[in-house]
Amino acid sequence: MNNTVQTAVVGVTGYAGAELARLLLHHPRLKSAPPVFAGRMDARDQARGGVPLAEIHPQLAASNGNGALRLEPFSWELLTQRGVEVLFLATPHEQSREWVPEALERGMRVIDLSGAWRLTEAANRAVYNFDDDGTELAAAVQAQAVYGMPELHRGAIASARLVANPGCYATSVILALKPLVAAGLIDLEHGIVADSKSGVSGAGKAPTAKTHFMYAADNLSAYGVFTHRHTGELLEQIGVKDRQIVFTPHLLPIPRGILSTIYVRFRSAQSAERIADVYRKFFAGSPMVRLYDKTLPQIQYVAHTNYADIGFQLAEDGHRAVVVSCLDNLLKGASSQAVQNLNVIEGWHEAEGLE
Amino acid sequence: MNNTVQTAVVGVTGYAGAELARLLLHHPRLKSAPPVFAGRMDARDQARGGVPLAEIHPQLAASNGNGALRLEPFSWELLTQRGVEVLFLATPHEQSREWVPEALERGMRVIDLSGAWRLTEAANRAVYNFDDDGTELAAAVQAQAVYGMPELHRGAIASARLVANPGCYATSVILALKPLVAAGLIDLEHGIVADSKSGVSGAGKAPTAKTHFMYAADNLSAYGVFTHRHTGELLEQIGVKDRQIVFTPHLLPIPRGILSTIYVRFRSAQSAERIADVYRKFFAGSPMVRLYDKTLPQIQYVAHTNYADIGFQLAEDGHRAVVVSCLDNLLKGASSQAVQNLNVIEGWHEAEGLE
Amino acid sequence: MNNTVQTAVVGVTGYAGAELARLLLHHPRLKSAPPVFAGRMDARDQARGGVPLAEIHPQLAASNGNGALRLEPFSWELLTQRGVEVLFLATPHEQSREWVPEALERGMRVIDLSGAWRLTEAANRAVYNFDDDGTELAAAVQAQAVYGMPELHRGAIASARLVANPGCYATSVILALKPLVAAGLIDLEHGIVADSKSGVSGAGKAPTAKTHFMYAADNLSAYGVFTHRHTGELLEQIGVKDRQIVFTPHLLPIPRGILSTIYVRFRSAQSAERIADVYRKFFAGSPMVRLYDKTLPQIQYVAHTNYADIGFQLAEDGHRAVVVSCLDNLLKGASSQAVQNLNVIEGWHEAEGLE
Amino acid sequence: MNNTVQTAVVGVTGYAGAELARLLLHHPRLKSAPPVFAGRMDARDQARGGVPLAEIHPQLAASNGNGALRLEPFSWELLTQRGVEVLFLATPHEQSREWVPEALERGMRVIDLSGAWRLTEAANRAVYNFDDDGTELAAAVQAQAVYGMPELHRGAIASARLVANPGCYATSVILALKPLVAAGLIDLEHGIVADSKSGVSGAGKAPTAKTHFMYAADNLSAYGVFTHRHTGELLEQIGVKDRQIVFTPHLLPIPRGILSTIYVRFRSAQSAERIADVYRKFFAGSPMVRLYDKTLPQIQYVAHTNYADIGFQLAEDGHRAVVVSCLDNLLKGASSQAVQNLNVIEGWHEAEGLE
Repeated sequence: MNNTVQTAVVGVTGYAGAELARLLLHHPRLKSAPPVFAGRMDARDQARGGVPLAEIHPQLAASNGNGALRLEPFSWELLTQRGVEVLFLATPHEQSREWVPEALERGMRVIDLSGAWRLTEAANRAVYNFDDDGTELAAAVQAQAVYGMPELHRGAIASARLVANPGCYATSVILALKPLVAAGLIDLEHGIVADSKSGVSGAGKAPTAKTHFMYAADNLSAYGVFTHRHTGELLEQIGVKDRQIVFTPHLLPIPRGILSTIYVRFRSAQSAERIADVYRKFFAGSPMVRLYDKTLPQIQYVAHTNYADIGFQLAEDGHRAVVVSCLDNLLKGASSQAVQNLNVIEGWHEAEGLE
Repeated sequence: MNNTVQTAVVGVTGYAGAELARLLLHHPRLKSAPPVFAGRMDARDQARGGVPLAEIHPQLAASNGNGALRLEPFSWELLTQRGVEVLFLATPHEQSREWVPEALERGMRVIDLSGAWRLTEAANRAVYNFDDDGTELAAAVQAQAVYGMPELHRGAIASARLVANPGCYATSVILALKPLVAAGLIDLEHGIVADSKSGVSGAGKAPTAKTHFMYAADNLSAYGVFTHRHTGELLEQIGVKDRQIVFTPHLLPIPRGILSTIYVRFRSAQSAERIADVYRKFFAGSPMVRLYDKTLPQIQYVAHTNYADIGFQLAEDGHRAVVVSCLDNLLKGASSQAVQNLNVIEGWHEAEGLE
Repeated sequence: MNNTVQTAVVGVTGYAGAELARLLLHHPRLKSAPPVFAGRMDARDQARGGVPLAEIHPQLAASNGNGALRLEPFSWELLTQRGVEVLFLATPHEQSREWVPEALERGMRVIDLSGAWRLTEAANRAVYNFDDDGTELAAAVQAQAVYGMPELHRGAIASARLVANPGCYATSVILALKPLVAAGLIDLEHGIVADSKSGVSGAGKAPTAKTHFMYAADNLSAYGVFTHRHTGELLEQIGVKDRQIVFTPHLLPIPRGILSTIYVRFRSAQSAERIADVYRKFFAGSPMVRLYDKTLPQIQYVAHTNYADIGFQLAEDGHRAVVVSCLDNLLKGASSQAVQNLNVIEGWHEAEGLE
Repeated sequence: MNNTVQTAVVGVTGYAGAELARLLLHHPRLKSAPPVFAGRMDARDQARGGVPLAEIHPQLAASNGNGALRLEPFSWELLTQRGVEVLFLATPHEQSREWVPEALERGMRVIDLSGAWRLTEAANRAVYNFDDDGTELAAAVQAQAVYGMPELHRGAIASARLVANPGCYATSVILALKPLVAAGLIDLEHGIVADSKSGVSGAGKAPTAKTHFMYAADNLSAYGVFTHRHTGELLEQIGVKDRQIVFTPHLLPIPRGILSTIYVRFRSAQSAERIADVYRKFFAGSPMVRLYDKTLPQIQYVAHTNYADIGFQLAEDGHRAVVVSCLDNLLKGASSQAVQNLNVIEGWHEAEGLE
């Protein structure tokens, strides 16, 4: 176990990248080795040696100290010179697809926040239309990738060279369903409904018709019905077939947070105690998941925190249950899960810097 | 067919009551006979002959004219003197329960916006704990009540003495499901999921912990899981059994609007054309329902309008569908549906004053 | 006085244009002659004879009727064929600058919602950098333009060929200050502060970094300090010099509405009665302005209405006052003021179709 | 300098109290001595030995550890037994007024977040109507109170027995104005305008008509014009007379954050460099204030941070300036300023636990 590690972040200008930067800058193990922030930039910014981080994210600036932090022009040489051992990519999936092989080649471990390497089955990857899919290199890289959800794959992550950090919607649905499916409780043939709602930061920083304040505010809209690209993660990680789950995302008029309302039918009548017990056992030793006994979680309990919260209500018949799962899409749904993966890789306490 | 009718509104201080006042004040048939606004008030306001409506709802005041409109101290004599023929009650269900028998006795027709008289089965009414349930009078009044959804009960409403105006959630779910159930398409034994989300006005005007801005804003919460009192309306009007539907309401951080995402499984594979056709036929002649062909409705399309909008997506297998149903909870979910019922009663065009 | 008039609207895809379309479609005088909606469009949409209005603004669609309304490909011939007498331009100022001369040439009256023709002084127009400024044609057109605020220029508007519809911020500040300045009460040398706050629709429909939900929500920001281009309208219409007023706009995290908080010092001590009287006299006969006696207006009183609301508080010393002025930026700040101007031009009641 | 200190918090159920609890629980110096949380509670909660903090504020609960934290029934004996040295009161001003004398008597230092002891002049205190004002005890306690703004009174705070933590609005206005007034730059006779806007958390946790979501959302309203009770703090701390400043608070439709737009006139023409220099010198050594050179701060830069941000724009004439000051009303406007005061008292780095 190392006491610290040299990290780098590419993609710090986006919402998840900004939160990742904030978390890493405050991580107790990284005080002595702050991350390298690198990215593509225009010639003018390159000429001035990069851009002060405080210009990009004023809320990250301390009154004095952090003024020195810079986003530097990306090059592989830069990362090598700085001795980067763990590289975080908060980049679009096309870019992650391209850069990850080189980073691995250069001996870095990679924690990739995009969807580039999350899916093991070609059918599920089809939604991304990767140029290189089917090549030997891509297959070799994919074979090394571990789905970065410590609650499911803690052991594999610890020794992974490439961690594919999960999608935000996927995290909220998988954490809620995996324990019940693993315990064999759910009637899969009956099918599962996952009705998810996400704040606007999930749609990314690019100004579009759908991220316009006038579109999102005072509104709610369903989208991607039967087609959202997080569906593949649900299928592979929960272990269900496409016809066994319907997943519908909605755009909420709030900056951040996901709430998934999940409807299941059990194979036989259950008691609330039994269900609670299944969750408790599954998440024993998982510090970033909080379970609710009598009440249900809601978005304000998790916004700006690194937790995933899970609660449920059981119908009187013991056969039907509604599970509610909440998290902050930028944190447990992206950047704090990435830091959690770093902690697992380095052998530090999984919640270090996250509570 | 009368050219106009004398109406009265009790309960104008609430959100639905304010919208009802606005709609009636602008209704072309009522220009010559503006509604009487009456309510309980303290001695001081009684002494000054009631309260100017503009004091209660500044947005209802015209610069000159409407200054004269007053909320008057309620008494049965007042209504009689003014020759009120149709009485709108936008009052709590306990009060409606108490007042409706007297209003009927006095020969008025009543359009009641509360839940007091919506449910025909005692088991479903149990959730309200009515003091008088089981009495002869209550049974007699209930027997006269017609569920005030013109799209389902146009004929009965036309001659009703008591219209029980539907609940807001119930309207959004019933309109989406009734055509499919009536056509025998849905596999009821498989069950239906109705995941509904409502703006805060649905929670009423009383300041509570849950209507506090700090609770509702930047938040989403599920509530009333397996227990919400609109469930009885769903069962009776759609014609399903309790175990065949799960209905989960959520509190959205917006002032107004409901979106229900409804999951059904068909008894046999369907085409999108077939489903669209079922909806089109069911709502032929229903001017307040708008159907969507290729896209899905969203809350901003219906907020501040009197429409209910319905769209759907069919899975490739033809067996599973997601139906999205939207309306403004204060309008088609309450006050404009009440005006629609008035139009039906008076034999006017159903959409008069509503488009 | 004509009973109706043929109008056309160019620029219906924007927020103000959509509201203008809604108002004109519901205007009692235009029922028999609905406006022509015209705009530039791509070849495909031209080929199908334009775009159904319901595709652009679903909330404008009635369940049956309005399906027929179309946005047609713009041409001068179209307007001529349809006998358009009054042309509304809800277009960017560059386009209004170009099209107004031709429209006037073709004998149409124009109500232009842009900033193209509002300013009589070249120094104030400089902020727009008009290509044609200084040309004879531009000067001739400008000479015909009347600033379209009926409360100030009712008579001139009635006979105007070109009405320059005021800016939204400008309307809120001018209506609050003009009566006091005209009465000679304000110590102009001391200076005026106008601190204005506007909802996001004021920033237009183009998706930009500043209209992104994540920028606007949960935020407030000042912008255009000492430089906002509505300043020229304030100077010309109120009759003050640049150094006598500081105007600061802010971006509010709401869809619509402007509130201006205005700080003045009087030349001599005043009573609240005196101030109220000055406002009452100035706005006698102005149906779209509402005055508040004891309370202050707020945005929710005017959102979705066509009114401008004004109230004030006087300091105990009688010298200092805070005036609060509110309106809906898309309505009295744009489209309903345009309809008000139409009413004045046609000799109809100024509030027709607006209450 | 002690390495740690035993603290207690009364009033943890409110918004500022919750943030204070969070900050103290994460403060590096207090890890070994977590604060005592105490409050009044009903008999049932007393009987069960208090209430788990996680029940009151789910977002404060860690998955395992913090479950043990409890809100305990308040008694002076409890505080004594636990050896409390520094007592934070996040209580209503009436309660602080009553409890502070006893706490001082018992030898505790007090950091009081209410308005109970902020004002030295009786005329300014009149707005609070304190029962005990004028008594010897009250005068003696008041004489010990230090206004808890480290940027102004660092030295006095270090040795204070009673720190009167500033009001949120007051903090935002005082920090912006004090440097300019202290430098003698502002023309006070001309007067200052402070137009402030605050999120709803500033209005407290009690559900009222004004904190109802339907009142605050999509709205903006001015209130307390010429009468807000933070005015006295402005006068005393900035050193101006009542007629020299107009302060207008507004209620913003956001959860948290204050932005004050402040209008000043200088006694002689100034350069932007000069003004920037005055601020820089004044805040040298003040880690919680961030200054902006070319841009203006906005609420999203400070929300959920402990900073106060200040920027300004100077008119071309050099005489008029607009200063924009932002902070999080629950943090630098309340709880993090309280922790900053704790740091000063204990001789720790002023920003410890706050960056």
